[in-house]
Amino acid sequence: MSKIAIVYHSGFGHTKVVAEAVKTGAESIPGTQVRLVPVEDVDAHWADLEGSDAIVFGSPTYMGNVSGPFKTFMDASSKPWFEQKWKDKLAAGFTISGSPSGDKLNTLQSLMIFAMQHGMVWVGNAEMPNQEEGINRLGSFTGLMAQAGQVAPEVEPNAADRRSAERLGQRIATATIRWTKAS
Amino acid sequence: MSKIAIVYHSGFGHTKVVAEAVKTGAESIPGTQVRLVPVEDVDAHWADLEGSDAIVFGSPTYMGNVSGPFKTFMDASSKPWFEQKWKDKLAAGFTISGSPSGDKLNTLQSLMIFAMQHGMVWVGNAEMPNQEEGINRLGSFTGLMAQAGQVAPEVEPNAADRRSAERLGQRIATATIRWTKAS
Amino acid sequence: MSKIAIVYHSGFGHTKVVAEAVKTGAESIPGTQVRLVPVEDVDAHWADLEGSDAIVFGSPTYMGNVSGPFKTFMDASSKPWFEQKWKDKLAAGFTISGSPSGDKLNTLQSLMIFAMQHGMVWVGNAEMPNQEEGINRLGSFTGLMAQAGQVAPEVEPNAADRRSAERLGQRIATATIRWTKAS
Amino acid sequence: MSKIAIVYHSGFGHTKVVAEAVKTGAESIPGTQVRLVPVEDVDAHWADLEGSDAIVFGSPTYMGNVSGPFKTFMDASSKPWFEQKWKDKLAAGFTISGSPSGDKLNTLQSLMIFAMQHGMVWVGNAEMPNQEEGINRLGSFTGLMAQAGQVAPEVEPNAADRRSAERLGQRIATATIRWTKAS
Repeated sequence: MSKIAIVYHSGFGHTKVVAEAVKTGAESIPGTQVRLVPVEDVDAHWADLEGSDAIVFGSPTYMGNVSGPFKTFMDASSKPWFEQKWKDKLAAGFTISGSPSGDKLNTLQSLMIFAMQHGMVWVGNAEMPNQEEGINRLGSFTGLMAQAGQVAPEVEPNAADRRSAERLGQRIATATIRWTKAS
Repeated sequence: MSKIAIVYHSGFGHTKVVAEAVKTGAESIPGTQVRLVPVEDVDAHWADLEGSDAIVFGSPTYMGNVSGPFKTFMDASSKPWFEQKWKDKLAAGFTISGSPSGDKLNTLQSLMIFAMQHGMVWVGNAEMPNQEEGINRLGSFTGLMAQAGQVAPEVEPNAADRRSAERLGQRIATATIRWTKAS
Repeated sequence: MSKIAIVYHSGFGHTKVVAEAVKTGAESIPGTQVRLVPVEDVDAHWADLEGSDAIVFGSPTYMGNVSGPFKTFMDASSKPWFEQKWKDKLAAGFTISGSPSGDKLNTLQSLMIFAMQHGMVWVGNAEMPNQEEGINRLGSFTGLMAQAGQVAPEVEPNAADRRSAERLGQRIATATIRWTKAS
Repeated sequence: MSKIAIVYHSGFGHTKVVAEAVKTGAESIPGTQVRLVPVEDVDAHWADLEGSDAIVFGSPTYMGNVSGPFKTFMDASSKPWFEQKWKDKLAAGFTISGSPSGDKLNTLQSLMIFAMQHGMVWVGNAEMPNQEEGINRLGSFTGLMAQAGQVAPEVEPNAADRRSAERLGQRIATATIRWTKAS
């Protein structure tokens, strides 16, 4: 089994919906085990992160960047960073905010830089935007972008964004199997 | 009169439409003179750029960054940069691509970093996204983002994006008057 | 009098030294009043921020981005953001970390995007790198970069970085007088 | 044999020195074949790029971004991009400029975003900065940063930067073997 952890912060439930869709997509690839870790519970799961083959990072975009709680987790990861415990794991990321663009790229770039400091290898969102099905409809490649206004998480992110998130899950799971079989 | 130059590259005419809308907006502010400078003509206009109070930079987003012709202009500006001829001028920027997000933020950030190296002061796109009127509908603050697919420039950028570009023109013109009166 | 607030987070005292040098530089410009606001005290100072003509943002770079406490402040600023209370104020930024580069640019870009969302106008670090005096020795233009290893704040940031920070203070103070006289 | 291509632009020879050091490092890993492709010759080598398992991108940082000639190559790659010919290849990047920081991170981020649009998987510079040996002395993780002032390419990049570049070559070569064996 290849093991994937999804560490995320969800302020109002919208990011959680994306995290669950990434999980669904990843679990659709045989031989993949996925664990969701909300950042507020991360202190009980540092060993799980260390034991994972890949870690997916997810945060809403607040004021053009990862959320405060997610950044607090990033700072706390300086312990495994110091010993490079996550080195050579795969990494991927996702974010969500109210506007189509909404400076979400800065969040994804920050997640990527974070993963690079940990010595990880970054797997992006390799989907050509498909306007009919809505896959990667916002046009984001470094990671997945979803959109949600001030509505319930059941309404937004919409079905297209959830399907896009499943695709990211499938991609990171497939890449993880490929990467770990070789080791 | 305060003087604003808009330096832009337009591969297929879509960026030119945005540049013209920024010009229209800026000229709506009394006491403002605007000059459009396509990058292919820039060699005839370096003195005009040096004589401007503000320079607006516009490029399509190709492969997640400014276009090759625009980057070639940026490199050529190392001459005025070396003597810091643009220091303390105001600057602003815009970009356009096919997707809502489409990594356009990286283009705007690159324009901003470029302006910072020149010692300029950056004026952003201070419009709260307005879904009804479509002003800043994509949610971009560092500069203006517009969207155009593979259709004629008369069709896209659409009316909302053109109005948003006019607002950026108004903002940079208003700021330029404020900044230059004080000098 | 023009009023400048410097909001900063300092985990171990090094960022505080930079903040104080920015203050010293700004106060050297006649007609300038400067207030230092550590992020842990910000709840007592939201009105001071709203009453300032310019706000300078300062954070250490932790894991390639602003620190968790600074990000928490950024998120809390969504209240003044919602009413665009900081619109048209000037802004500037600084950061510090252990390496010469150390992904500090991502912190400065994040501060700049944050200021843009607030509708502010960004004043950079317009100093050509001077190897003899050490002014802007790291080569940063979006904002000031300083460097400190695991030594006491009295030792690092070094004298060159402190002088560079004073220059940023002088620049933001001069720009603020220019900008506010015109209003 | 795993195949790695290094596509680079060198204006004055300094970037070429880094490219050659990356090649030396990569070739030190048994089973690795490396081809250097200067961007001015790329039209003769598109098939070689398509036939590679990994592509390393290298550009000097000019005005805070990749050089004009390198950006022109990036734009020309829209042909293989359209058919996603580089999808799932590994990618890495390096840059060089005169200052320690010098906005080089924006160049590396732009290379990474470019690779993400191509659907590639990004391998960073996973070396903890080592002040004694000078490995990754500038503190860069997304890719390799080197430094060269206005001196001959034989003088700068210095030995520490060349060794750091060899390490990046070793890393991308090792990762390529791991990634391709699994396919």
